[in-house]
This record gives sequence, C-alpha cells and structure tokens, in this order.
Amino acid sequence: MSPVTDAANATTPEREDLSAITDEEIFAGHLGGKLSVELAAPLETQRDLSIAYTPGVAQVSRAIAADADLTKRYTWTDRLVVVVSDGTAVLGLGDIGPRASLPVMEGKAALFKKFAGLDSIPIVLDTKDVDEIVETLIRLRPSFGAVNLEDISAPRCFEIEKRVIEALDCPVMHDDQHGTAIVVLAALTGAAKLQGRDISGLKVVTSGAGAAGVACTEILLAAGVQDIVVLDSRGIVGTHRDDLNPVKDDLARRTNPRGLTGGAAEALAGADVFLGLSAGTVDEALIASMAPESIVFAMSNPDPEIHPEVASKYAAIVATGRSDFPNQINNVLAFPGVFKGALDAGARRITEGMKVAAANAIFGVVADELAPDRIIPSPLDPRVAPAVAAAVAAAARAEGVA
Amino acid sequence: MSPVTDAANATTPEREDLSAITDEEIFAGHLGGKLSVELAAPLETQRDLSIAYTPGVAQVSRAIAADADLTKRYTWTDRLVVVVSDGTAVLGLGDIGPRASLPVMEGKAALFKKFAGLDSIPIVLDTKDVDEIVETLIRLRPSFGAVNLEDISAPRCFEIEKRVIEALDCPVMHDDQHGTAIVVLAALTGAAKLQGRDISGLKVVTSGAGAAGVACTEILLAAGVQDIVVLDSRGIVGTHRDDLNPVKDDLARRTNPRGLTGGAAEALAGADVFLGLSAGTVDEALIASMAPESIVFAMSNPDPEIHPEVASKYAAIVATGRSDFPNQINNVLAFPGVFKGALDAGARRITEGMKVAAANAIFGVVADELAPDRIIPSPLDPRVAPAVAAAVAAAARAEGVA
Repeated sequence: MSPVTDAANATTPEREDLSAITDEEIFAGHLGGKLSVELAAPLETQRDLSIAYTPGVAQVSRAIAADADLTKRYTWTDRLVVVVSDGTAVLGLGDIGPRASLPVMEGKAALFKKFAGLDSIPIVLDTKDVDEIVETLIRLRPSFGAVNLEDISAPRCFEIEKRVIEALDCPVMHDDQHGTAIVVLAALTGAAKLQGRDISGLKVVTSGAGAAGVACTEILLAAGVQDIVVLDSRGIVGTHRDDLNPVKDDLARRTNPRGLTGGAAEALAGADVFLGLSAGTVDEALIASMAPESIVFAMSNPDPEIHPEVASKYAAIVATGRSDFPNQINNVLAFPGVFKGALDAGARRITEGMKVAAANAIFGVVADELAPDRIIPSPLDPRVAPAVAAAVAAAARAEGVA
Repeated sequence: MSPVTDAANATTPEREDLSAITDEEIFAGHLGGKLSVELAAPLETQRDLSIAYTPGVAQVSRAIAADADLTKRYTWTDRLVVVVSDGTAVLGLGDIGPRASLPVMEGKAALFKKFAGLDSIPIVLDTKDVDEIVETLIRLRPSFGAVNLEDISAPRCFEIEKRVIEALDCPVMHDDQHGTAIVVLAALTGAAKLQGRDISGLKVVTSGAGAAGVACTEILLAAGVQDIVVLDSRGIVGTHRDDLNPVKDDLARRTNPRGLTGGAAEALAGADVFLGLSAGTVDEALIASMAPESIVFAMSNPDPEIHPEVASKYAAIVATGRSDFPNQINNVLAFPGVFKGALDAGARRITEGMKVAAANAIFGVVADELAPDRIIPSPLDPRVAPAVAAAVAAAARAEGVA
C-alpha cells in the first residue's frame, strides 16, 4: 500500500487500493472469457421455436429481402458495435498479436454493454495489412451497426480509420485516437476551469506522436489551444525535422509556434501541461522544470510516464490512465456514449462536432464538483454515458449526418 | 386448423397448432433481434474494472502473448461458434442476400445457446466470391473457436467447406449439408427399426442434389445403403448424363445401381424412401407409386414437397422439416451437440465418424419410444444435445483428432 493510494482512498471512497489485487484474482476473473451471448426472448416451446426459427423466421427474411432498411428493426445490428483489432498496439504492451489482444477487446465489449447497453463483440484479425483489414470490414459490413477500431499501431491506424470511414455508411471510430482525445479535452477543460484559466492560453506538451498523441493534439487545436509542442521518440516535432511521416509532417506545420528544437527538456521547460501518451517515461527533473500550477496527465498504461506521487510534488493537478489513482483519464468515459448517441441518431459517421460535444458533456457532469482530484467524472459514474449519448445524438442531427 | 395438425396435437401434446401464429406475433418476436451480449461477471466497482480492464487485463494479455494456448482458457473463443453465411441459399427462399439471412443466423445462434450452452454470433458476408469467403474466415480465425457455415448455395458450398476445413485448425461444418445428413440418418434409422427393416436394403430416392441432397446421399452410402437414386432438376443423376458438375459426376458413379434413366416417375416407382431436399414439389401420384410401407421425408422449408396429410394417404411414415407436423427433421437435433462435443474434446476437425456417432446418439434417445409419429426426438428434447455432445467428443478422441 502506497501513501498515494491511501490518500486517494481517503478523499474518494469509491477508489480502492488495487495493490491488493493478486494475479490469481485477475486470472480467475478472466477464466472462460468475459462475455456471453444470450437469448433476447425465451425459446422454450415449439411455438417459440416456430416464431424465432423455422417456419416463422422466413417471413422476416422475406420482409428484409424486400426492404433492407428493416434489417435495423428486426436484427441486433442496430445496436451492435464490433471491436476490431489486429493486436499491433495493445495497451502499452505493443504488438502482441490478435490472440493476446482478445482479453482487452472482450473487456471493451463488456464496457459497451455495462455503460451504454450496446451489444458488442470482439473481432481480432490475423493480418496487419492495411488493405486486407479495410477489405475484411467491408465484407463484414452487413453483420454490424458500428465499428470501434482498437489498439492498431500508428501510423497505420490513421489510414485504416480514414479508409474504413470512407468505405462504410456507419459510425466508425478508432478509440485510441478519438476516445482518448475526447476525454483529454474534457479533463483539460475541467483542470483549466478549476484554475480559472482558459485552455486556449495553455502551453501544452504532447509526449507521443502515435494514435492518441496525434488525435489529442488535433482536438486541442480544434478547441483553440494555441501553443502545443509534440514530442516523438526523436524529440520535438517541428518543421526543422526531415524524418517525419506525412501525419507528423502535417502536425509540424500546425504546432510548435515558438519553433523549439531539441527534446523533452526544451519542450517541458516552462510548459503548463504535460500529456503523456507514449509508453515511455519522463524524468522528475523535467516535470520540476514546468511552469507553476502545472497540469500533468501521465496516461501510459499500465505504467504511467511518471508516478503520480512523484508528479504531485511539482504539479497542481495530476491525472493518469489508471483506476487506482485520482483523475482517471479513461476512454470508457467517451466511447459507450459516443457510439450509443451515434447509433440512436442513425448517424452515418462520427464527426469532429460530435466528438467535441462528447467532451463537453463529460466535463458537464462534474462542472459543479471540480476539485484537484476530480477534474473528470469517475469512469463508473452512471450519469456520463447518457449525457454523452444525448449530446452526440443532438450534434449528429444538427450536423445533418443522421 | 387442418385435420392433420389436430391429429398431431392429439398424439403428441407438446406440438401446437401453428396455423394460429400471426405475422404480428412473428415480427414482434424479432423486434430488435434475438440475441444480446452479456457480461460473464459483474462490473460494478473500480476493483471489478481494474481486474477486467486496465490495468489488470494487461497481465492476461501478456500471458497469452507468451503462450497462445492460454487463449482458450482466458477468452470466450473456446466456446464461440460463428454462424457464417453469404445469404445465397436461405431456407427455401434462395439468394436473398446477407442482410435478409440475418434473422435466420440469429435464430441459429440462439439455438446454439439454448441447446448446448455455446456462445454464437452471426457473421454475414457481403461477398459471394469463394476465394474471398475463405480468405475472410482465415483472417477472422483468432476471433472464434468453430465455424458453422450456413445457407451457402451449392455447388459453391462444397468447395468453401473443403477449403475452410483445410485452412483452419478448428471444427468447421456446413450445417445444411451435414447437420441435415446426420438427422436424416438418425430418422431413417428410427423408421427402419420401427418397420423391422435394415436401412442397407432400402431403395432410397434423394430429390435434390444441392448441399443437403449430396450430404445425405454421402452419409447414407457411408451407413451402408446400397440403392440410392439422386434426382436433380433435370432428372436422375447417372453415368448416362453429360451435364453434371464434378460433385454430381462423382455421385453418379456411386449411386443409381440399377442404371435408371428419366425423372422422378422412374425413380420413385417401387422406391421405399423419398428424401425431399429441394425447394420443389412432388406429385401425389408419384408418392402413390412407391412400394408398400413407404417412408416419405418431405423436408423443404417452409413448404414441404408434398403436404404431409396427402403423403400419409400412401406412406407408412411421414416426416417434414416443420415443427407443426410430426417427425420434424430439424438440424437443431444435431448441430448444437456436434459443435459442443467437438469443442469439448478440443477437436481440430469434424470427421465422418463424429457425424455418424451423432446420428446414432440422436436415434438412441428415442430407440425405446419409436412410433410412426416418433421416429426421431422432438427438437426441444433436452436429452439430445448432451447425448450427441458426449458421443461426438468420444468419437473425436477415438479418431485422434482431439
């Protein structure tokens, strides 16, 4: 038991000391997997069988053959989200393959059910080829209502998401990008509000130019943040670099307004916000070099870039990706409600406006309860998903994509 | 209400008069689909979340990355059957497309749960290309434990099944072929036993050389039936024909021992058994031309080749594919137990021996209760799936595929 988790327990009783969770408990909790398929209605009598299966089902199939729109009404696809991964960027573990990614995808599917009442199934693919992944989802299209792309490595994830969105007439979102970005925007809005600052004036350092780093930078730019410096494994992303892929090259032209060069030390000196979105670490001295009243989101999972106890020695507000510390930046605050809202509205895609509406809705839940250890709602807060779903559905209708 | 269903109700009380089922009831029974995904364990506390999702899940993913065999133990794939269709041969409705096939596939998935406790999800594909269907299942392989191919048109289904079996290291079965064949063998065994005859001596006419017709002929040949005449839309399949595809050409050399030519009239005159496995009809006069004590299985769905009331004027034993008449030849007697047994045994494939073991197990359930309207168990008989699963698992172990 660390002093930090003790303190956390004292202030927010719903948090538990997770240092006491053993490997035995974790593996026991995964025995046989975390999902099951159940019957929506009983199938007990010949009559039930004749309605749900032959001969009755033929009537429903005939009706859908005549009018494909009836698929939504008479099958589960209208509320079915497939969680799709190739296992190339699983949590902070990297390219561990589709099989090893399955427990994560099952967990994600369980969260869709728990928080938004959506049905969800994991689809893990034994290919890393961009063309093949896109093509496979096109072939599977009649089987589902929406696609949550998950744990696909950058920069492949950018092209895969773009092409799947173009190919399919349904909500598609790479959650590692946009789920994270939505929650980061919500949390940063909460932190700035608590400090009486406007986010547009914050000096932000994004550590990591992978899926989450790029998407967070994009949503913060869209939300009006002026000064963002992005770090990748070779240092500050800027126009001085000639080794950037097209995605980073595009970012270089829209970030780093002070034309910094160098690495983390140069980026973090005097910065207001550190967004940790890599699997790396950040030295305590660099956090110490940030501006007063700094904000540190050390979101790498399962190991934060800096221990929150250490970060708290210098930063006014600290958040992580873990449930055993205060201020958990967890995508579960976003994705269930985002997909629920998009499906409820019958949206054909998920727009930037729908994502910003989701962030505002998450922030809205705790707007009147802000505290240094409560800049965002708990991932278990049952108010969040319905608020997000309603905001996203309204935005979809307002933007005309529903 | 027809006299036939009245009579059926009188002798077997579990059967109901389905003429009273309205379209309203059928469509109401399909609203929102027939499946849901549920959580295998509660997800109520931060502790639950930390075990099932981050950070706990990382331990399980790491373990599977180190030992892929643990996938079976810690994910749902070990009991997950995907029901795969391209919608090209749905019930007796033909090529109505993947969307219109979905209610049938959902029904199938529900039956897997109801009768064998297996989890099952429909995967309907927006392609009819054989290469693409096989390739797609290879890419999806890490997502499931077994494949039930369903409602795929002949002769494509033969090549697809063969190639998927070769490509995947798991149980694969095209149910329209082998599920039907297993239940037909069980029912014919029951009928022959009731009449004191041996099935090997029966003159059998198989009407239809599609998926079910071919598979039924194959399993009856394997079970020792000597005299089978196969009919396709152009008449008797035999070595005199020069218009046969490779599958029918192969059958021609192993059936029709009396060298008959012509059509249904020539085939049925004096025959003991009619197996209706097409979407067509058969004239009353032809059924009348069969041998005394004839056996008629009119299995086309939803419309039998001949109304069972009419067939009963001539035949000693009549069966259909429908639940509202006696002796329902329904694949549900086979597929849940076959897949359960194969998965329980960890079988890498489903062999002919496992299929014959399944047929014998189905027959075994009613061996001591045989009657003209009870040559096979009711599809709702809870004794069937466990008996089939045990027999199939034992056969898998005996054959060394487990």
